[in-house]
Amino acid sequence: MSMLPPRSSPRARHYFWRELTELMRRIRSLRSALALLSWDQETFMPVKAAERRAEHLAVLEELLHRELTSPRARRLADRAQVLLPSLPEREQRLVRLFLREYRRARALPARLVSELARTQALAVESWRAARRENAFHLFAPHLERLVALKREQAEHYGYAEHPYDALLDLYEPGMRLSQVRPLLEELVQQLQPVLTRVLESPPPQPLPPAPCTAQFVLGRELCIAIGFDPQRGRIDTSTHPFCTALSPEDVRITTRCSEDDPQVCIFSLLHELGHALYDQNIPAELAHTFAGEGASMGIHESQALFWEDIIGRSLAFCRWSFPLWRRYLDGMLGTPWGRLSVEELFRALNAVRPSLIRTEADEVTYHFHIVLRLELEEGLLTGRLSVADLPEAWSAGMERLLGIRPPDDRSGCLQDIHWSLGDFGYFPSYSLGKLYAAMFWRKIQHDLPDIEEHIERGHFRTLLDWLRHNLYSVGALETPAEILQRVTGKALTSEDFLAYITAKLRLVYGA
Amino acid sequence: MSMLPPRSSPRARHYFWRELTELMRRIRSLRSALALLSWDQETFMPVKAAERRAEHLAVLEELLHRELTSPRARRLADRAQVLLPSLPEREQRLVRLFLREYRRARALPARLVSELARTQALAVESWRAARRENAFHLFAPHLERLVALKREQAEHYGYAEHPYDALLDLYEPGMRLSQVRPLLEELVQQLQPVLTRVLESPPPQPLPPAPCTAQFVLGRELCIAIGFDPQRGRIDTSTHPFCTALSPEDVRITTRCSEDDPQVCIFSLLHELGHALYDQNIPAELAHTFAGEGASMGIHESQALFWEDIIGRSLAFCRWSFPLWRRYLDGMLGTPWGRLSVEELFRALNAVRPSLIRTEADEVTYHFHIVLRLELEEGLLTGRLSVADLPEAWSAGMERLLGIRPPDDRSGCLQDIHWSLGDFGYFPSYSLGKLYAAMFWRKIQHDLPDIEEHIERGHFRTLLDWLRHNLYSVGALETPAEILQRVTGKALTSEDFLAYITAKLRLVYGA
Repeated sequence: MSMLPPRSSPRARHYFWRELTELMRRIRSLRSALALLSWDQETFMPVKAAERRAEHLAVLEELLHRELTSPRARRLADRAQVLLPSLPEREQRLVRLFLREYRRARALPARLVSELARTQALAVESWRAARRENAFHLFAPHLERLVALKREQAEHYGYAEHPYDALLDLYEPGMRLSQVRPLLEELVQQLQPVLTRVLESPPPQPLPPAPCTAQFVLGRELCIAIGFDPQRGRIDTSTHPFCTALSPEDVRITTRCSEDDPQVCIFSLLHELGHALYDQNIPAELAHTFAGEGASMGIHESQALFWEDIIGRSLAFCRWSFPLWRRYLDGMLGTPWGRLSVEELFRALNAVRPSLIRTEADEVTYHFHIVLRLELEEGLLTGRLSVADLPEAWSAGMERLLGIRPPDDRSGCLQDIHWSLGDFGYFPSYSLGKLYAAMFWRKIQHDLPDIEEHIERGHFRTLLDWLRHNLYSVGALETPAEILQRVTGKALTSEDFLAYITAKLRLVYGA
Repeated sequence: MSMLPPRSSPRARHYFWRELTELMRRIRSLRSALALLSWDQETFMPVKAAERRAEHLAVLEELLHRELTSPRARRLADRAQVLLPSLPEREQRLVRLFLREYRRARALPARLVSELARTQALAVESWRAARRENAFHLFAPHLERLVALKREQAEHYGYAEHPYDALLDLYEPGMRLSQVRPLLEELVQQLQPVLTRVLESPPPQPLPPAPCTAQFVLGRELCIAIGFDPQRGRIDTSTHPFCTALSPEDVRITTRCSEDDPQVCIFSLLHELGHALYDQNIPAELAHTFAGEGASMGIHESQALFWEDIIGRSLAFCRWSFPLWRRYLDGMLGTPWGRLSVEELFRALNAVRPSLIRTEADEVTYHFHIVLRLELEEGLLTGRLSVADLPEAWSAGMERLLGIRPPDDRSGCLQDIHWSLGDFGYFPSYSLGKLYAAMFWRKIQHDLPDIEEHIERGHFRTLLDWLRHNLYSVGALETPAEILQRVTGKALTSEDFLAYITAKLRLVYGA
């Protein structure tokens, strides 16, 4: 008498894992190819290759989508449902990540997937031209098309409360507009009096200019001293700084340079460094699975903002890095870097002042920029705001929130690359990242009471070990809420951020 | 009464073309992604990413193979057979290219395809290390594995006369070992007395050294002056110079530099430029089809060698480019570029002398290098030569053919990247390319009697127009033999090459 093995037998599990592993391997490889095609588009691609590149990206996205919607993937998903209860905790989490991807892919028709890819690739090029020539109308038709496609995408995914949630969930699993919007609006209200008080104090002196090459070399040295592994990554320049990971062994970051403001180059790099350290330290045994990446965009941003703001703009870090700033920049362009003091560097890096460009905004006004984008995205998506009205809505919002109007769209609604990439629902991740980072920082200060002395001596190992142990090691096996709970023992709150920022501003602006 | 359209109706043809176009689009996109992954591996990839990159390449090769072996491709191939006689000439040629690809893909089991890709990617890395450390044993096991896989591949393809033919046909459709081997061995015999005579004359003075950066800038300027479009391509450096085309809008070439010998950088660039001009000028309407590439490797090499040797090393080209050589190189490293004459440059560029490295060999001894590789490849493939015996067989062959022995494997059997990439059967393309180029050149001189004056004045338009009209425009729609017949009115011969080289050597070495 022969018998088929029961569906949750060890043999059934063995076949299931082999097939799932193969599927993840194919998907990871396609994603790496897509990452390289995109990285290349932003860095080294010949200018006239843009249209054809859009085609290549669309076809690869289509193939990726086909992998997740094939009969084979469906059989795997069916078996996953059956096997799930019999699997150990860790495997269950991996399988749930697969099921999430599978359901998302099944939700979208192949036509929409390839249209999104093609529209986005062309939108990026039009955004680039529009920004260069300060001509919103070059970007507008592409943005309109993208908004329509994103709305369609949200409907296909489905949502309980608001179409925005369907997109937000792509970046921050489990987050809803009804949670994040009041949280950030309240935070901005609490920051308003802080901002008013700060603006009554005399502003810190800005940093002197420095040549771009020297800035780049300094930034690169800082990244490597902190822990970026140049044998498993690259540092280049692009219009909009970004980080992309083909694998933990190939993590690429970029920055941009402005002679007049060395902060742009150095702190863009420290920001992307935070992403890169996370990506380079994903455990090898997760790298080829769906858990081989950050837990969410918000958690990823927390790492970027942790290194950019909490560490990079700390007095301890200034004390350690000051000799390097002087070594690379003093005397260049005949500027007085040599006469600067550590305290002046620290104050300059932490100047608070309403400004037009999000990526150059300080830690206080940054949230104002995000709240504006959140409102506009919500308006575009529900149709209450038309693309044609976007430039004016942007300007009016800046005036209402920060009291300043952009003189042109280049410093207004054309400043960010995100919408051209179809990344609607992404912006809240930045503010969430700041809140997460402050929560982690409070816990680090508790766990490692002498951490600031380590930083002051340029010893980043202790900090990296803490992050590796508490965060990097789990990849995407835990949700953001689970990570917060396990690491800090608390649910999401803006309290730690408020405590952190007011303490720092006391140092910068005095009592 | 309803009726299915007959299988060669306009409607059937319409559906057939739509499906075939989609298939070609997917395959072209996957090939472009593979080209970028490989280009990046040779230029900018972080060193520790090699193993994972091999994995990504293998998966994409597998997906490509799957496209060509899917039930959909099979249906297309079946329909192609039926529709073929009813199609116009041009469509027939396109369909035959598809059927060739289809049959090749069906011939190989998926396991072999992905094993080849993985083995090759690792072999490249081991070759790099072996060459760096002059340690053949690092490369040997990978080469052994590759040879076994290539033998298997040849068996799967099938052949009428010799397993080598099955691989040769990949690069030079229709060519056989029984044709190319006697042709090249006879050529080498005819060149032997030419070489002996030349070696009795006093050798030209070598070129002075120059800094790598200046060489690179000079080479780049020459390429762009001739017609390389930098908005549709890139020029970089890598260990082994190469050209890769993601599309006609994205053609990338590389070179390598040696301070002691500026010829290496400049003439590697002119070589790759020849490939690039061909690739950049493939007509847009062919670009997304299987005809959107060169007619064969031999024809492609003919373009590389045409620009490198026939044009680049001509007296007319020297007269035009001489001021640029001086402008970029004079005074650098305190060397006497300024005291050089055009004739000295011309003589230095055409010095004939047995040497160890194929890519730096002159136009006469180059064929000796190829004959050696052809013999060794044939031996490896049939098993008459073992990988372990390769270094000694190489040295003995060099001694027999050119009277010199390499002092180490780095300048012996480890010098070429080709075998590590699995490119067995490729080398004859170089010699065939030289023969094709000389045949084209004789026809050009006939069609454009004042062409050398054009070159002397730096007007390359006439030449490019001739090439566009006679060669570039047909892509791979014609076979090499058809192209030769149409353009020169003759079948393959080494006569034009012999006439060309003896005439030039008279100029260089006197009567």
